[in-house]
This record gives sequence, structure tokens and C-alpha cells, in this order.
Amino acid sequence: MKNLMIAQSGGPTAAINATMVGVLQRALTSGRIDKIYGSLHGIKGLLNDDVIEIGSLFANPQNMTLLCGTPSAALGSCRYKLGDDPAVLKKIADKLVEFNIGYFIYIGGNDSMDTVLKLSKYFAANNLDYIKIMGAPKTIDNDLCVTDHTPGFGTAAKYIAVTIAELLCDIRVYDTPNVMVCEIMGRNAGWLTCAASLAKLGGMGAPDLIYIPEVAFCEEQFIEDVKEKLEQNHFVLACVSEGIRDSDGKLVCERTGEKTTDAFGHKHLSGVGKYLGNLVREKIGCKTRDIEFSLMQRCSAHIASATDIEESRMLGAAALDRAFNGGSGEMSIIKRLSNHPYQFRIETTPIENVANKEKTVPLEWLSEKRNNVNQQMLDYLMPLIQGEVHVRYKEGIPEHIKLY
Amino acid sequence: MKNLMIAQSGGPTAAINATMVGVLQRALTSGRIDKIYGSLHGIKGLLNDDVIEIGSLFANPQNMTLLCGTPSAALGSCRYKLGDDPAVLKKIADKLVEFNIGYFIYIGGNDSMDTVLKLSKYFAANNLDYIKIMGAPKTIDNDLCVTDHTPGFGTAAKYIAVTIAELLCDIRVYDTPNVMVCEIMGRNAGWLTCAASLAKLGGMGAPDLIYIPEVAFCEEQFIEDVKEKLEQNHFVLACVSEGIRDSDGKLVCERTGEKTTDAFGHKHLSGVGKYLGNLVREKIGCKTRDIEFSLMQRCSAHIASATDIEESRMLGAAALDRAFNGGSGEMSIIKRLSNHPYQFRIETTPIENVANKEKTVPLEWLSEKRNNVNQQMLDYLMPLIQGEVHVRYKEGIPEHIKLY
Repeated sequence: MKNLMIAQSGGPTAAINATMVGVLQRALTSGRIDKIYGSLHGIKGLLNDDVIEIGSLFANPQNMTLLCGTPSAALGSCRYKLGDDPAVLKKIADKLVEFNIGYFIYIGGNDSMDTVLKLSKYFAANNLDYIKIMGAPKTIDNDLCVTDHTPGFGTAAKYIAVTIAELLCDIRVYDTPNVMVCEIMGRNAGWLTCAASLAKLGGMGAPDLIYIPEVAFCEEQFIEDVKEKLEQNHFVLACVSEGIRDSDGKLVCERTGEKTTDAFGHKHLSGVGKYLGNLVREKIGCKTRDIEFSLMQRCSAHIASATDIEESRMLGAAALDRAFNGGSGEMSIIKRLSNHPYQFRIETTPIENVANKEKTVPLEWLSEKRNNVNQQMLDYLMPLIQGEVHVRYKEGIPEHIKLY
Repeated sequence: MKNLMIAQSGGPTAAINATMVGVLQRALTSGRIDKIYGSLHGIKGLLNDDVIEIGSLFANPQNMTLLCGTPSAALGSCRYKLGDDPAVLKKIADKLVEFNIGYFIYIGGNDSMDTVLKLSKYFAANNLDYIKIMGAPKTIDNDLCVTDHTPGFGTAAKYIAVTIAELLCDIRVYDTPNVMVCEIMGRNAGWLTCAASLAKLGGMGAPDLIYIPEVAFCEEQFIEDVKEKLEQNHFVLACVSEGIRDSDGKLVCERTGEKTTDAFGHKHLSGVGKYLGNLVREKIGCKTRDIEFSLMQRCSAHIASATDIEESRMLGAAALDRAFNGGSGEMSIIKRLSNHPYQFRIETTPIENVANKEKTVPLEWLSEKRNNVNQQMLDYLMPLIQGEVHVRYKEGIPEHIKLY
């Protein structure tokens, strides 16, 4: 019998461990896996000899429950860019052979799928194609292609919508003009910012304005929009993606003068909310708050979407199942069958369709002025935040599990 | 039969409506109240003729449940400073007489208790002492005197501890040095920042460093502390109160150059997290995130502390009860009887003991180096975040009630 290797990579989410639980449960019920290993910090664990045995821990189902409710990547993560250096690829392959690995499940986003693509090609070219490597999707950004949506997105969307619903209770209490600018994650795709619109289900209204990277941002228009909304109501709530750009493609957040870049060349974006808050103060002069949802939006396991968690588990299980059936170099995906009632099916797709690609928001799902969403977007988003999970509290705080 | 007037004032909390529910339930079961009114935006509603009848809405207990789960002040709030102008005081009194008010419950913090004090004195001096005015406490800051703790604090503390517990799952995933600075509310009192220490119950550790306004802040020492912690672990989580000051009493957040002031002369503080994050980047050079918990920490009803909500209800009921028994110019308080098991009693105190006063953190509840808490603080905080509330979700979002 062969062994199983699991690793997690890219930005953490609150559902990436649920996908791991899906893999573990499929492995433990298959009768086809001997030992289960975890590579710590994604692919780096194989390069740095940082691999742990995890199967025995999950012989206790309580630990499965705990893992499912633990946000972020329990095996650690990395932003390591796998190049084409044959020595590095060989080192990884040697380590997999050493551990007698037959199945390798890599849970991650579009950058991580590039790693799956490179390794699957290397295995094929080096008589190692008995090692089946499969990707399982993950990203709060919802920007993976082919799959209808991504695990982790529903929970982040629910956190954002619930938080906006609560902030709408707060912003209305004073009777003086008041503008709130909420900065939400999303470098190139505005999915999460659009999810703020779901706050309306709470009964206190919805964001007045939504700006996403897919639509060129104009400061003058933004101030006009806020002024127009302030004439209708004494408070205005605007949501903006961190990655909004002007018509020249220049990031608005760079006007603050701060920036840093990660290993994939992605800029660490932050500060657009503060920048626009200051702009409102300067141009309109009313009380203004800027709020950045920061890392909370990607680790809010205590308010996870039950739909997201169930789907995440299934995508993990399906990736291993496909590997059992001989699949490799593919990623498990969600195909939506209908909105009302919400129905979906799990399939897989060749990794080339996903790696290094991004899916952005269709402009026809926005309002006419493109500063809010329309019903099509709401119909798409609604099913993804449905249902609440049971959280295991210990003395008032959700209990989490530590694997290393 | 006389009528009842309720108003809410000061910064919103997630428990101020629970206190209102306590008042409503005591009124509806007393047989001593005819109509129940709400003055919108605190005392301003009486001055601006902005008063609504609310009793009939709560003949339906479902609306009581909804109100209890709605964060922020459902009757609106104000930061109006009541001066000594007899014309203004008379206008308020006339309005109460016009509405045939026998009981007036004002839910608020130390500034709001100043309003209760002034009105009770005015009623006594003007043959209106048949109008009983009572304060019910409220503030996430936990800085009211006499009462062991304040309604709203437990829920804010729970939000902060849960969020830190989740952020601790996030910060540990990469294997590179990483510093997180979390900015928490608290102008002069560090109670909420100390509550971050409760994150340790989640199993992923606790904040490494805690800085509060009660202890003079030294930048050099802060950088030394972070460096020392970075030698022990690759990630460091520091929590700071927005109102930390240096040994000259100067606010650290003012070094960013931004400030605004409210009607009570309180500065709107913000930016100390960003300032210290930049300082770490400059002096240590590792990856750094600064996170501001902003308004989320005062409106997080979805993760309310059941202990806080129950106590908040009782404090509202007790304020009206004391008024029924002839009390006026007092505030309901919590007296703690023991930590293990946690036991308390509700009493009242003359409003002079509370108005315009602040209770800060005892220095003997801090660690020796005064950059964290000790067991005494944990023993005090622990009971206040216990228990979870049932949240009524509607299509994935907590349902809230709108009163005006």
C-alpha cells in the first residue's frame, strides 16, 4: 500500500482545514492508504525535510472536528515559487519516493496550482507517474477559473456580510452626517467586496456604494457618489476592494506612498480605505471612519458558512478520489447546477485550466453606474453563505488544534 | 398610571439593547406602567420632540428576542453634553411632564451619568421629584466606577479574545519572522486590551505583549520587547490600547499627526497600531501587520457573551425596579461576590459615585515588566466572556430590528 502526502499553500482561509479533513476521511475510509503525512509549509516541507506523520492523530474523530473548526492552514503555508530548476524538482520527487507516496494532495490557490502543474509534468517526464498529484482549491478571493466558486470564499463572504450588517446598526445611531469606508481584500477581483451586499439580509440596509478592481476608479466620481447618497440619508457606507485602480491602471492605495511585495511579485496592498476616508474628510468635511477588515476576513472560523465547510470537505475528498482513479495534474471543482434551489456537483479539471489564471467579476452583475451590485450577483452569492456551523467552545473561546 | 421613558446615550455596545429589554420586561410585568416611550438620540429626543411610542411593538415577544440580538443603540445615541442652562433643563422637564412620565431610564456611560445627575438635581429643586430618573450602565470600556464591570464589556472582550485566537492561527502559518500589532479601543483604561489575553483559552497561545494607557509607553523598550520575543519564536503578537501615552503623558497616536475631537473634548484616537507597525518595520525590518479592531469590537452581537447579555438585562430591570421603590439619581451596578464559582449581585449606587469618573486597570494585575497581564487579571476577566447566545439567522445573516 502506498502512503498519502498532504500540504497546504498560499494565503490561509477558514476552510482550508475542512478540505484537509475531507482528504483525511476519504483516505481513512478507502482501505488504500497506509500512512498519512503532512508536509509543513507547503512544498517547502519536502525540500527542508519538514514532514510529519498525521494519520494516527485522526484515528480520534474528535480531532477531526477540531481541525474542521480551526482556521488558517494547520500544516503551515508558504508563498514559495517553484521554478524550473531540475535539481529542486528532483529533490521533491526523491522525498516523495523516500516516503513511499502514491498520492499527493496540494490544497491551494492559483499560484499553488502552478506547483501542481510543474510537479505533474516532472513526474510524467521522469517515470514517476505512479505518484498521483491532485490540487484541491482554496482561496477567499474566489478568483480561480473553471470552479463556480472557491472554498474559503463563502466563509469570508459571510464574515464580511455579518460584519457590515452589524456596522450598519452602529453607523446609524448618531443623527449627524457620517461616512464609513470599509476596505476589503481583493487585489484584482472584487468578489469579496461584492459580498458586502449580502448584509441587506440582516434588515438594516446594505452598503450604499461598492467599488471593485474590475471597474476603473475615479476619485471625483467617488466624492460625487458619496455626496449624492448623503443627500438621501445622513449616513453612507462605502465598500472598496484593496486593489481598486484608476483608468491608467494605477493602484489607488499607492497614493498613500506605502507598498511591499511578496515572492510572487504580488504587492501587499493596504491603505486605500484610509486614503479615501481622508479624501471624504477633505472634500466633504463630515465625520468619517475607515475600517480595514484585514486578516479577520480570512480566519473567521467562528462564523463559518456551513455550505462552504461542507463543500470544502467534499472538494478534498474528491481530489483524493480522482487520484485513486488514476487522475493526476487535475484540480477538484464545483459546478453549479441551479440557484433556486441551490444545487451543485463536484468534478475535476486539468490543472492547466486553473494555474496562474484569475477569474474576475462579470461587469453585467453590477448596477448600471457600476458602483454597486445587481440581483444577478446577489443570486450568485446568496447560497454560498447559508447555514451556520457548530463551534466547539472551551471556556468561552472556540477551541483550535495545533498539528506542529 | 404613569408612563415610562427610555433613552440610550454614548458610544454603542452590543449589549445596550439587552439592557433596554430588561427595562421593557420589568415594565411590562409590573402593572405600574401605562405607555412606554423611547427618546431618540438620547436626551436630544426630548429637546427635539423626537419621541416614539415603543411599548406596543414589544407586546410581541419575538421583537424582544430580536432587540436583544441587535447591536448598537436601537433608539439612537448622542454625544450631547448637557450644560447648566436652566432653559434647556426646563425644556426637558416640560417634555417629560407632557408625556406624563413617572420613570425615566437613561442607559449610558460616565458622560451619560452626568446627564442623569443634572436632571435628578433639577427635578429635586423644581418640585418634580415624582419623576424618578435612574441610570443603567453601559460601556465596552469597563471604566465605570463602583460597578465590578460594565454591560457591553464582556461581549467586546469575547470578540477581541476570539479574534486574537483566530489571528494566532493565521500568524503562525509562515515560517518567516512576522510581527502583528493589534490596536484595541481604550482611551484611558486598558481593560479591553487586557482581554486579548483570554485568547489563550483557544489553545494557540496568547498575545506576547500587551501595552495599556495606565503604563507609560517607551518606544525603545517596545522594540526591545519585540526583539526579545522574536528570539523565542518566529512570530510575535502585540496588543496596544489606542490611548497609550509616553512618560510625558503625550499620546503615542498623535505622532501620526492625525486627530479629531468630540463634543466631550475626547480625542478620536486612531493610528497607534499603524505607527508602531511602521516602527517595527523600520527598526527590526521583518514582515509586520497592523490591525485595528475598530468599530467591530463594539457591535459584534453575533458572538456576544451570554454572561454579559444576561447581566445587561438584569441591570436594566434593576434600574426600573429601584425607581418603582422611590429611587432616583442612582445607577444599577454589579457587585462580584466570588470568582470560582462566579457569583454576583445587582445593587444601585448614587450617581455622584459614577458620573464623570473613570476606573482604570490596577497595576498589580499586570506582569512584572508591565507588558502583559498576570493571573489576577485572568481570574477577573474569565467569567465575563462565558457562554454563547442563540443568534437568530435569516438566510445566513443575523436578523436585526429597526425601531425608527
